[in-house]
Amino acid sequence: MNPTSFAFEVTARQGRARAGMIHTPHGTIPTPIFAPVGTQATVKAVTPAQLEELGVSLVLSNTYHLYLRPGAELIAELGGLHRFMHWPHPILTDSGGFQVFSLSETRQVDDDGVTFRSHIDGSRHRLTPELAVEVQEKLGADIIMAFDECAPPYDRAYNERALERTHRWAVRCLKAHTRTDQALFGIVQGGVFLDLREKSAQFLVSLDFPGYAIGGLSVGETKDEMHAVLELVDGILPEDKPRYLMGVGTPQDIINGILRGVDMFDCVLPTRLARHHAAMTRNGRLNMMNAVYARDPSPIDPQCSCYTCRNFSRAYIRHLIVAREMLAATLLSIHNIATLIQLVTEAREAILTGTFDEFAAAFFALQNQSNA
Amino acid sequence: MNPTSFAFEVTARQGRARAGMIHTPHGTIPTPIFAPVGTQATVKAVTPAQLEELGVSLVLSNTYHLYLRPGAELIAELGGLHRFMHWPHPILTDSGGFQVFSLSETRQVDDDGVTFRSHIDGSRHRLTPELAVEVQEKLGADIIMAFDECAPPYDRAYNERALERTHRWAVRCLKAHTRTDQALFGIVQGGVFLDLREKSAQFLVSLDFPGYAIGGLSVGETKDEMHAVLELVDGILPEDKPRYLMGVGTPQDIINGILRGVDMFDCVLPTRLARHHAAMTRNGRLNMMNAVYARDPSPIDPQCSCYTCRNFSRAYIRHLIVAREMLAATLLSIHNIATLIQLVTEAREAILTGTFDEFAAAFFALQNQSNA
Repeated sequence: MNPTSFAFEVTARQGRARAGMIHTPHGTIPTPIFAPVGTQATVKAVTPAQLEELGVSLVLSNTYHLYLRPGAELIAELGGLHRFMHWPHPILTDSGGFQVFSLSETRQVDDDGVTFRSHIDGSRHRLTPELAVEVQEKLGADIIMAFDECAPPYDRAYNERALERTHRWAVRCLKAHTRTDQALFGIVQGGVFLDLREKSAQFLVSLDFPGYAIGGLSVGETKDEMHAVLELVDGILPEDKPRYLMGVGTPQDIINGILRGVDMFDCVLPTRLARHHAAMTRNGRLNMMNAVYARDPSPIDPQCSCYTCRNFSRAYIRHLIVAREMLAATLLSIHNIATLIQLVTEAREAILTGTFDEFAAAFFALQNQSNA
Repeated sequence: MNPTSFAFEVTARQGRARAGMIHTPHGTIPTPIFAPVGTQATVKAVTPAQLEELGVSLVLSNTYHLYLRPGAELIAELGGLHRFMHWPHPILTDSGGFQVFSLSETRQVDDDGVTFRSHIDGSRHRLTPELAVEVQEKLGADIIMAFDECAPPYDRAYNERALERTHRWAVRCLKAHTRTDQALFGIVQGGVFLDLREKSAQFLVSLDFPGYAIGGLSVGETKDEMHAVLELVDGILPEDKPRYLMGVGTPQDIINGILRGVDMFDCVLPTRLARHHAAMTRNGRLNMMNAVYARDPSPIDPQCSCYTCRNFSRAYIRHLIVAREMLAATLLSIHNIATLIQLVTEAREAILTGTFDEFAAAFFALQNQSNA
């Protein structure tokens, strides 16, 4: 089913990097974009109002978690995920596949689907491509994902089997999808094996999805391997469809992705690091619990214009951490999300003005400097 | 030392209830006022921006906690408490007395001060009236408190001894106080014993403090006993000075306090209840974890105009609680603080328009209705 209210346009290109706009029923997403993750229908420790102030335009939420708790029927009954979590802007849901394979201890995959036990209470569940689409239709996100099998990146035999299944499931997802106000993306798999990645990208392109995700990366492979996959896939995926690198991540990986034609990123990193007292900056992470910050009057990042950096000192944030105050996680989450939003915003501006090469060069020079 | 930049004016009276304005170096506080508590230089789970949006005009912070961690010198070095916690509006600090007597397991009181062990690491400390004032001068709040000894409300002999000490300490606090941009309040003690309360109020009035706190209430005595103390003290304290009922609390206690001439209230209740899943409303508390709210699309309180009630359903808040998401504490804290702020704001408006009797009658009728 082709979406009727979804469109993507590339507005500028520089090298492989693209700046564009994804139009959805809940608003337009400027690309390249970073989406913070609201696993359980909330981006941990921040309010929707704070996300809006940060300029966030897309939030990801996890089908696996919402399916288990509070349940897709309940969310549908309450008007869908946008209304439930009070995020009236674009939402993307994943298919649940990745979580079934990473969170559930016991699972049995067969050609029809996956049987697994809930990580919450051990209860038995079964997800199929059809059910993954049905659940995502109930949640009502603007962008939804095909149900895929995620194999460990270096296991060739497993990747071959999983890829066949992922491709058959992609066809079934397309067939099961009925809502025309949602865009269903296919997911390229194949581990670190370039021939499998090529086969996967070609097959999915033949199915004519409105967008393509690249899955199974940032799961233990080397940076070179990740880049090789991105470069290969970039040459196969259609230019006029958005490309989404799932679960990425760091400022470096984001800039490297943009350089290789990626438009969309998501990751739990900014909010997870925040709960572990780490502040993200473009040139590295700061452990804000470190005693060196105890009397430091400067903001986390003097370059940053977020609410946290405009108003609070490192000393105050360290005090909140030491005193185990919840506000520490909130202020650090705001700052970390801001770091990635500001990064993709500046990258986009650079692509639009034809200065992205310089922008990327300056970015990597800063990295090397701080690593030296 | 009389404060040079502190003033109180009563703008309207109805019965014993008063509406007024407290002018401080960091802004004007309309009274009656409720101050949320930021024990460790943060009102738990909410940002200063959220407090501003709630219309909060005064925040209380605890000298005992800040003295132990991060230390008053550090806060002074970073520009004082207003700047440290980014609350550029009025702040009140207590003297540390109450916490020394309620949190520290081992303590020894003598006529000169109190020796106690930190509840954090067991380290040994000593607070005297002079040091309590010095610490509060370093913190730099607009309103600070005399160091007092808090006795159990029903122990007559203890209250007699403690009162003598509290009075001698009040004199020493006044003598030690040097900053002219802070108002030092005396604290009326005496447990449930009206003759001791009378003696205390009269003695403190003779010292001419710019404001008077009523301490040692809401600590286990009956409502009738609390009201008797308030009525007695109301007849002794000067009309042209603000009266502050410490550690109170519930909507009922606040309205009962206003009816008996109290201008200022503070309590940890709204934020503490929020972390225990309870929503405050004028006619009682709701346990938001209750399964009856699982599919409830209505806001916590349809009468409430706070961010939480404008945007989120009971079902969503229950989901956040069940999923152990931090946002639950934030949204409930916002709502609970809003409930008390809206209550004192409406009470003030009623006093200004001469309708406070009707307002209070309607308020108590609602209470009886929900208790029936």
